[in-house]
Amino acid sequence: MSEFLNLILAIIIIIFVAKTAGALSVRIGQPSVLGELLAGLILGPTALNMLEVWPMFADDHLLPETLTLMAEFGVLLLMMLAGLELHINELLETGKVAGLAGSLGVLIPLALGYGTAVLFGLPTTEAVFIGLALSATSVSISAQTLMELGVLRSRVGLSMLGAAVFDDVLVILLLSLASLLLVGGGSEGGIGPLFLTIGRMVGYLVGASLIGIWLLPRLANKVSDVNIHYGMLTFALATALLYAWTAEAVGGMAGITGAFLAGLFFARTPYRRDIEQGIAAMGYGLFVPIFFVNIGLSVNLAAITGSAWIFAIVLTLVAIASKILGCGAGGRLGGLTNRESFQLGVGMVSRGEVGLIVAAFAVAQGVLTQDSFSITVFMVIIATLVTPPMLRLSFAKEKEAAAT
Amino acid sequence: MSEFLNLILAIIIIIFVAKTAGALSVRIGQPSVLGELLAGLILGPTALNMLEVWPMFADDHLLPETLTLMAEFGVLLLMMLAGLELHINELLETGKVAGLAGSLGVLIPLALGYGTAVLFGLPTTEAVFIGLALSATSVSISAQTLMELGVLRSRVGLSMLGAAVFDDVLVILLLSLASLLLVGGGSEGGIGPLFLTIGRMVGYLVGASLIGIWLLPRLANKVSDVNIHYGMLTFALATALLYAWTAEAVGGMAGITGAFLAGLFFARTPYRRDIEQGIAAMGYGLFVPIFFVNIGLSVNLAAITGSAWIFAIVLTLVAIASKILGCGAGGRLGGLTNRESFQLGVGMVSRGEVGLIVAAFAVAQGVLTQDSFSITVFMVIIATLVTPPMLRLSFAKEKEAAAT
Repeated sequence: MSEFLNLILAIIIIIFVAKTAGALSVRIGQPSVLGELLAGLILGPTALNMLEVWPMFADDHLLPETLTLMAEFGVLLLMMLAGLELHINELLETGKVAGLAGSLGVLIPLALGYGTAVLFGLPTTEAVFIGLALSATSVSISAQTLMELGVLRSRVGLSMLGAAVFDDVLVILLLSLASLLLVGGGSEGGIGPLFLTIGRMVGYLVGASLIGIWLLPRLANKVSDVNIHYGMLTFALATALLYAWTAEAVGGMAGITGAFLAGLFFARTPYRRDIEQGIAAMGYGLFVPIFFVNIGLSVNLAAITGSAWIFAIVLTLVAIASKILGCGAGGRLGGLTNRESFQLGVGMVSRGEVGLIVAAFAVAQGVLTQDSFSITVFMVIIATLVTPPMLRLSFAKEKEAAAT
Repeated sequence: MSEFLNLILAIIIIIFVAKTAGALSVRIGQPSVLGELLAGLILGPTALNMLEVWPMFADDHLLPETLTLMAEFGVLLLMMLAGLELHINELLETGKVAGLAGSLGVLIPLALGYGTAVLFGLPTTEAVFIGLALSATSVSISAQTLMELGVLRSRVGLSMLGAAVFDDVLVILLLSLASLLLVGGGSEGGIGPLFLTIGRMVGYLVGASLIGIWLLPRLANKVSDVNIHYGMLTFALATALLYAWTAEAVGGMAGITGAFLAGLFFARTPYRRDIEQGIAAMGYGLFVPIFFVNIGLSVNLAAITGSAWIFAIVLTLVAIASKILGCGAGGRLGGLTNRESFQLGVGMVSRGEVGLIVAAFAVAQGVLTQDSFSITVFMVIIATLVTPPMLRLSFAKEKEAAAT
């Protein structure tokens, strides 16, 4: 029972500190997400280091893994909720903007990130993967902020979500390409595996969409006829998990893309409200605060020392500027106003867990040193931290207009 | 990511199979719990053995532990929901019945279980611990069944929940006593530790009640003033987890008792409905089906062979009869009708996780052999499995009366 007792004690501390920090954050006019992320940094190795130093947790090797699993579960719920908030037709209307912002928002950070790393003396291969970490985006936190601001379904919000899907697809393609060309990429070699990667991705997206549009609403109607406690909620949750699982296992994509798609398709059914309430209770009541805090629990900013700080800070500034530049240019080309293009770019700055996944992948492939990894994680954290307040600032006028 | 992918795949399978079996169970007039428990036996080592045989799960050593943690979390939510369903005053009114049924419901199964084990040639110490496993009760499944039948707040339902609290306290006292006298019980020795055990228990119950009655409603009012997403739900959840944690860490009692108490105290606040909806979504949508299925995942009934079956079957019959006899006699002495006393006894038959905890404790102390453990687990499973249909049968008349 001891491991279970530790887990619930850790959960008590995490959700209590996260919600308290979130409430304080709201009180000073910032999104609650900012407080929850900072709560994680304080509880993590950068400050209190609760998992490694506090005597009750120090010997529990299962706890960090369990918390990480719960955090990953939280991201899926968050992306499912983002999908449930949307009308798919509205999203499709943003296709052009999303495509342009998504592509330029990958290519410009990749180029500038690569250039910065090379300027600081890193070898080509390492610089490419750092560039790729800069290309990643994770709009779960931005989506949450836009939901709080009540503008997720605005033109900017919808373009951002659409662009994030393009971003995800492109980054994963480029990651596969880079690992093929620069690392070796398995025993097959050649250009074949790349086509296989693209084929899997397209196959998944087409299959998931056909099932989501044709089969899912019919299945949901059947489920609603069955007399079982919380049957619809469980059905929607199991489906979203299956979409996430197949996104990774079949499509070779990020699981969050699958969860987002599932939310999108359930949003078209008459059961949307019920599903949303249940998933929101699970998510915001338990898993999502664990996700936000766990980001801080898994990084030690104190490990970056000396001259590495200069590289870390420059890289972070490049990460923020290049994303705003790239996505903003794409938005502008796609027909958004200057103001909207800027807001769109700001919303895409957050790298969240996708940036971390790219960095961890590169370390596992042996192409990123531990030092570069720490710096990349610092960049991801700061880019993620600054997004909610920047986003809020960029929407200050709309917020004012709505209030009057 | 692979461990996470395995976890979500396992969760998809578990909640899908559990809810499908639950729906079939409802269709043939049984409580859904029965189907969910049987689903676990089918997925477990007794039949399909999914965690050990299916290739994607076989090498994942983290998965069984993670599922068990989620299952334990589910029990806490279930007991919190049982508490939220109740008015504390109604429960206190059952004090006399609950005390009598709780005490006799422990002593008679203990005596008869001990006797049966001795008759089958087991040594005294082992027989005592088998008797203690028979004394345990876990009303989470009965509470769930009574909720489904709509009679949890009847005189029988309330007596059962009250008796379960007495049962829990007594079994833990006797377990401490037996381990002191028969195993050795730590370095202190003597009667001191026993008084310490009682003192901790009383201290916890008094402290938890005072805080729950005086402080909790005031804190809840403060929380309701704070502008944060799902703040009340998180507060209630964190409090219930803290009650569960302190029940074990401070009171030396079962965590489920703490979660139940927390539910009881939140039921007195004006936020009861909101809390109940959120916890129910979390519980019934995810954690509770995992709890029911996990019982089946952790036992292999096929391991019991030959003559051990006779002992297993006799012990199970004694377990069922002695609980009905003991609790029924207590209920009758406390002023219930014959019919109500029988219903009360039936509701207490389920041993659930408490019986398993006693058995596992005895194995860890080296006083229960692996064979006796398998047989005890078989007894717990069958007693748990037969409770919902027996309970439903015993309430058939009330159900009929309510329908007309």
